[in-house]
Amino acid sequence: MKKLEERILADGRVLPGNILLVDSFLNQGLDIELFEAMAETWYRYFENEPISKVMTIEASGIAIAALVARIFSVPALFAKKYDTLNLTSDRHQSNVYSYTKKKEYSIAISKRLLTEDDHVLIVDDFLANGCALRGLIDLVESAQASIAGIGIAIEKSFQEGPALIRAGGYNLCSLAKIASLENGEITFAPADA
Amino acid sequence: MKKLEERILADGRVLPGNILLVDSFLNQGLDIELFEAMAETWYRYFENEPISKVMTIEASGIAIAALVARIFSVPALFAKKYDTLNLTSDRHQSNVYSYTKKKEYSIAISKRLLTEDDHVLIVDDFLANGCALRGLIDLVESAQASIAGIGIAIEKSFQEGPALIRAGGYNLCSLAKIASLENGEITFAPADA
Repeated sequence: MKKLEERILADGRVLPGNILLVDSFLNQGLDIELFEAMAETWYRYFENEPISKVMTIEASGIAIAALVARIFSVPALFAKKYDTLNLTSDRHQSNVYSYTKKKEYSIAISKRLLTEDDHVLIVDDFLANGCALRGLIDLVESAQASIAGIGIAIEKSFQEGPALIRAGGYNLCSLAKIASLENGEITFAPADA
Repeated sequence: MKKLEERILADGRVLPGNILLVDSFLNQGLDIELFEAMAETWYRYFENEPISKVMTIEASGIAIAALVARIFSVPALFAKKYDTLNLTSDRHQSNVYSYTKKKEYSIAISKRLLTEDDHVLIVDDFLANGCALRGLIDLVESAQASIAGIGIAIEKSFQEGPALIRAGGYNLCSLAKIASLENGEITFAPADA
């Protein structure tokens, strides 16, 4: 998606350790007009899928999920993160390792909100090692719901997540693909839409 | 707002300890169509204010802020929560006591995202004791930005937050006001819009 790539080049900042900082428009400051254009792009890509819910994980994915759900005219929902979590019968749970925080945390969603009748479009701001996304997939599959597709704003194609997800047969649509951040320079691979 | 009150009566659940559970449509499952109607109501209430940003705190307020920002055609932003936070010069910070979690946490927003030129509409899902909201107000005032108004989906009028905020002279618009949850029964006071 050309508009997102241009915005990343204009306002993204590359920090040591292959970190791309986009907090001015994607994950703290939220450029809602850009999010609407992203949502429209995913709508065209997934419009033949029978999507019943748009799902993400707190916190950065929530605004994106809200605008995508609006265009598909379906509810959104988000998995909550917990430092520790007792196993209970009323929610689906999974564990996620955070490389950023170097620790494992739990994610969960109420069983009332996600059932076997659902066709879920998962969306998130970033896909890098894929840990958070695999946790979300795990929740959807625990509910015996189907995954209609996965929409990612920015994938870091040089990390293992994107290839692993595609190898799993999921229909992944990334709007910007970072091929490299070496020497502080942002290089894109061709995006999915 | 009649539509929100009706939804609370239909799907809200009262739990012991004056807790109102609305996770099926407001703060885990997100009824985006309802959020759009809420955003339109706040738009009519605040449309003469020169609003430049819509601000909230992670996580439950983010989807609401996204849809309100869309209607006002301005960016949204959210304060992040931290268990512990070092004081740095590049962000505004405040401390919030959580009665739910019985501990203090820090909230922060990048100084690049909130400046003295901003007129901020603060929105959130709940107002009860007002601790989170006072933390947000603190961040806006640290930035020397002005607070154009405060939009709350559900206020618990029987707790101290709403009266304290109104006594502070802020223009608070709550869409549903819970007068009482006694004996598991939801009683409303007249809402602001």
